Amino acid sequence: MIFLPVRNFKEEDLAVIEARMHELAKKDYKIVGRQVPKDEARQLYKDNPFKLEIIDQIEGETVGIYRQGDFFDLCRGGHLDSIGKIKHFKLTGISGSYWRADREGTALQRITGVCFATKEELAAYLKHLEDVQTYDHRRLGKQLDLFSFNELSPGMPFFHHKGLIVYNKLIDYLRHLRGSDYQEIKTPQVVNESLWRTSGHYDNYKDHMYFTSVEDTSFCIKPMNCPGSILHYKEKPHSYRELPWRLAEFGFMHRFELSGVLHGLMRVRAFTMDDCHIYCTVEQIEQEVFRSLELAQKLYSKFGFNDIKLALSTRPAKYIGSEEVWDVATNALKQALEKNGKPFVIQEGEGAFYGPKIEIKIQDAMGREWQCGTVQVDFFMPKNFELEYVDSDQSRKTPVILHVAIYGSLERFFGIILEHFKGHLPFWLAPVQIRVMTITEQQDAYAAEVLQGLRDAGLRVERDLSSDQISAQIRRAQVEKIPWMVVIGQKEVDAKTLTLRHPDGKQEFGLTLEAFVARAQELNKY
Amino acid sequence: MIFLPVRNFKEEDLAVIEARMHELAKKDYKIVGRQVPKDEARQLYKDNPFKLEIIDQIEGETVGIYRQGDFFDLCRGGHLDSIGKIKHFKLTGISGSYWRADREGTALQRITGVCFATKEELAAYLKHLEDVQTYDHRRLGKQLDLFSFNELSPGMPFFHHKGLIVYNKLIDYLRHLRGSDYQEIKTPQVVNESLWRTSGHYDNYKDHMYFTSVEDTSFCIKPMNCPGSILHYKEKPHSYRELPWRLAEFGFMHRFELSGVLHGLMRVRAFTMDDCHIYCTVEQIEQEVFRSLELAQKLYSKFGFNDIKLALSTRPAKYIGSEEVWDVATNALKQALEKNGKPFVIQEGEGAFYGPKIEIKIQDAMGREWQCGTVQVDFFMPKNFELEYVDSDQSRKTPVILHVAIYGSLERFFGIILEHFKGHLPFWLAPVQIRVMTITEQQDAYAAEVLQGLRDAGLRVERDLSSDQISAQIRRAQVEKIPWMVVIGQKEVDAKTLTLRHPDGKQEFGLTLEAFVARAQELNKY
Repeated sequence: MIFLPVRNFKEEDLAVIEARMHELAKKDYKIVGRQVPKDEARQLYKDNPFKLEIIDQIEGETVGIYRQGDFFDLCRGGHLDSIGKIKHFKLTGISGSYWRADREGTALQRITGVCFATKEELAAYLKHLEDVQTYDHRRLGKQLDLFSFNELSPGMPFFHHKGLIVYNKLIDYLRHLRGSDYQEIKTPQVVNESLWRTSGHYDNYKDHMYFTSVEDTSFCIKPMNCPGSILHYKEKPHSYRELPWRLAEFGFMHRFELSGVLHGLMRVRAFTMDDCHIYCTVEQIEQEVFRSLELAQKLYSKFGFNDIKLALSTRPAKYIGSEEVWDVATNALKQALEKNGKPFVIQEGEGAFYGPKIEIKIQDAMGREWQCGTVQVDFFMPKNFELEYVDSDQSRKTPVILHVAIYGSLERFFGIILEHFKGHLPFWLAPVQIRVMTITEQQDAYAAEVLQGLRDAGLRVERDLSSDQISAQIRRAQVEKIPWMVVIGQKEVDAKTLTLRHPDGKQEFGLTLEAFVARAQELNKY
Repeated sequence: MIFLPVRNFKEEDLAVIEARMHELAKKDYKIVGRQVPKDEARQLYKDNPFKLEIIDQIEGETVGIYRQGDFFDLCRGGHLDSIGKIKHFKLTGISGSYWRADREGTALQRITGVCFATKEELAAYLKHLEDVQTYDHRRLGKQLDLFSFNELSPGMPFFHHKGLIVYNKLIDYLRHLRGSDYQEIKTPQVVNESLWRTSGHYDNYKDHMYFTSVEDTSFCIKPMNCPGSILHYKEKPHSYRELPWRLAEFGFMHRFELSGVLHGLMRVRAFTMDDCHIYCTVEQIEQEVFRSLELAQKLYSKFGFNDIKLALSTRPAKYIGSEEVWDVATNALKQALEKNGKPFVIQEGEGAFYGPKIEIKIQDAMGREWQCGTVQVDFFMPKNFELEYVDSDQSRKTPVILHVAIYGSLERFFGIILEHFKGHLPFWLAPVQIRVMTITEQQDAYAAEVLQGLRDAGLRVERDLSSDQISAQIRRAQVEKIPWMVVIGQKEVDAKTLTLRHPDGKQEFGLTLEAFVARAQELNKY
C-alpha cells in the first residue's frame, strides 16, 4: 500500500507517475493470479478499510489476488500475461470521486489513463482529445463572442448578438424546409399545474419542473410543449379532412438540472425545442414518419451530417393501448424506415410505454455520436386529453400524435455544430460573413461603398475600422473565423474591383462587386 | 325612492327606462335646488342607509337638495335649468359595482348613459361605440384565427399560426429598420432574486413578479429586460470608442396582473417588449434620442399612425443624480424634440426619479390614443450596477442608459393595429396575402401552378380547396379579410393570365403571373 504525503494529487504528478509506469513496464513482470481464502486476504489488507469492505461483499469463500512484481491487488482476473506489453499509454486526468459514489462517503481521487496497442493509435487519440479541448464549444463561444453564462442564471445561456444570429438562422432554416406544410404556433410558458397533472408530467417529471404561484394557484413553467399544442388542438372540433395536422412550435422551455451536471449549451436549464406535433390517423403514421425522416436527413446534410444512425424502439413490457394498435404503429415505423432506405437497428422493448419511436443519431467531424432527432408515436396523450376528430362516417375517433424533433434542443445543436465545424461556421450560418479591410485610409470611401453594396444585398458584413496593419487585420478575421475577407488596396480602388481572401490564405483578385455578391448570395441560399 | 322587484336590472330594462326618460324630459320640469339643514335631509332619507351615510360625511350644517318634478336628490348642484333640454341621450350599459368600491360592501348596479347636444353627435358617438365593439381585437382574433386564450394560462396568449406570422413580421420589420446599427441579444428569463434586489425591481415591483425556487435559491421570471442587458454589458470592459452601444432584445416577460384587469392582448401577463438599451455618454443623449424618435416615427407611419403626440417629462421633486446632469439631459431631450420638429408638450415634474423621459402616443383610426413609445434616460441603474467605460483620458466613467421601446408590448401593439385596421391588415403584414380560387375543377392544374409560382416568390398564399360556388369562396375570403383574391376560370387558364379581385369587389383582368408577382412584391417591401 502506498502512503501519500498529506496532499491531493495534482496535474503535475501525472508525469512522475507515468515515468515510473514506464520504468516498471520495462521490467516486464509476469501477472500471476491465485484464489486466496478470505481470512488470508483480510490479513493482507488489515490496514485498508476499503479493501476489507470489498472482501466482505464478495460471495464465496475465496477472493482473487493478482500479483506483478511486488505489487498485488484484489481482482477477478482477465489480464495480460506480463506488463511489458503495456507500452503506448498516457495518463489523461485526475478527478474527484466518492467511495461508493456516495457524496457523504470518503472523498477519493481517480486517475484516468488510456492505453493503445500501437504508438499511432495513441497519438491519434491524443490528437482527438486535444481537438475536443481546443474546439470545446464553451471556449469557441467565448472566442467568437457568441454566448456566455452568468452565475445569477445557472444553465441559461445569454446569446450575444452574433450567437443570436446563428440561433435565429437555425430556426429560419427549418421553417424554410417545412414550407407551407406546417403550421407554427406559440403557446404560453406558464400554465396551471392541473394541466401537468393531466399530462402526467407532474407525476413523472416534477423534480425537473419550475413552479410558481399567483392568486393561490400553482403554475408550472413549461418543461415540454406538448400540452400547449394539445390545448390548441382542443379549441375547436376537427374533421378527418384536416388530418394530418402538423403543428410546430419553437418552444422555449425550462427544465431543472442539478448545477453539477450543467455543461455549456449541451446541458442547460432553459432551451428551445423544434417541436412538432402531428395529429393524424393510424393509417397516416407511415407517410408522416417517412416525411419526417426525409426532412431530418435534409436538414442534417446541410451541416455535413450525412452519416446518421437510425434505431426503432418497440413495445416494452409495460404499455398502454391494444397490442393490435402497437403492431400497426410499429409496423408503420418499420415500413417508413425501409422506404427511407438507410440501415436501422431494432431496439426490442425499448419504446416508451405510450408508443414506439425512432431515434436519429448524427456523427460529428470528431467521430462523436449525438442523438438529436426523435419521432415518437403517442397513443397516451390523445386518450388522456380526450382528443377527437370526426371521421368520414361521422363517428368520433381518437387521433394519434407524432412528436417530432429534428434539432432536438436548438441550444445543444448549436453547441454540437460549433465543435463539429471547429468554430468555422458555414457561410450561410456565419454571424459575420464578410469582413472588409483597407490597407490605408486612402481606400475608406471605396470601402464604405462596398460595405453598403454588400449590406444592401442582404449579406452580413462588417468593416475593420482599426488602423492596424493589414496583416493584423487578416489575423484577427482568421481568429474570429470569418469566412470571407475583402482586402481593399489602391489597386482595387482604381480598378473598382475586390480581392476575396479565404481563411486558408487563398486569394481571388479582380472580382466586380456584382460577381462577388452573386457568389455570396449563392452560398447564402438554403 | 324607487323600490325594485327583487331582481337585477337586465339589458332589456334599459329600453323601458329610456322611454320613461323621454316621457319625463318632455314635461320639461325646472331643476330647482336649495340648501337643507342636515336633520331635515336625514328625515327625507330616513329609509335610505346609503344617503344617510353620505349626509354624515358632508361637512357643514346643510346639504344641497335638487328637485325636478316629484324627484329630488342630494346634490351640490351645477345643473341645466330644466330637463326638457335633455333630448339626445342613450343608455349604454349596466355594470355591477360595490358601495364605496369596497368588495366586501353591498353589491349595487350602475346604469351608464351618454347625452349630446345634437342628434348628429349622438349618432356619431353610437356608431363609434358599435365600431369599437365590432372591431374589438378579441373578436377579430377569433374571427381571423389569430390567437386565443385559455383559462389554464390566464392572460397569456396562444398565438395561432396566422397570428404568429403577424407577430414575427412585427419583429422582422423593426429589425429591418434598425439595420446594422443595433445589436440584438437574448438573455435568460429566470434570474436570481438578488439581481432584482440590486435593480430595485424587488422593492418596487415584487407584487407583479413571478417567483420560483430551486436548490434553495429564489429566482424571478423576468418582468423587465434591463438587468439582463446590464449583465451583458458587464461581461467585459468597455472603451468610449464603443459608445453608443445599442443593445436590443425582443424580451419575453411575465408580469402578474389581477385576473379582473386582464383584457385580450391589451392587458396580459406575458408579453414581448421591443426593448433597446443604449449605453452612451451624456453628450450622446441628444443624438441618440433624435435617432430613436426618427426610428419610432418611421415605424408608426408604416401603420398609418402619422398623428403622434410627444410629451417630455422633467425632473420630479424626488430625484437622484445632480441637478446639473438632470439639466443637461433634459435639455438634450428638448433639443432632440426640437430638431425632430413635431410639436411636443412638457409635463413638468412628471419624470421618473431616475431620469427624464419622452412619451410617444399614437392615435388610431377610431380616434383613440395609445401610448406605445418611450425614451427614458436612466442615471440610476448605471450607478447601481457600477457600470463603467474607459474614457479617452483613461479615466473610468459611468455611462447613461437610454431605455427605448417603440412598439412597447408587441402583443398590445398587435391588438391596437387589429382594431385600427378593423382586421384588414395591410398586404405586407397579412398572414394570408393571397387566396387562389377556381370556378370549377377544370382549373385545378393551372391553379396549382399559380399557387406554386406565388409561393416560390415568397408570398403567403393559400388555395380554397372547397367545392363551393365561387361567390361563397369570395365571401369567405372577405370575411377572413384576405387582401388579394385570385379568381381562376377557364378564360384565365386559356390565356395563362390571372384575375385579381380586391376585397371591395374591384377586379383587374388579364394579369400575367410575372406582373402579378412584381406588384405583390412591391407591396411586400418594407
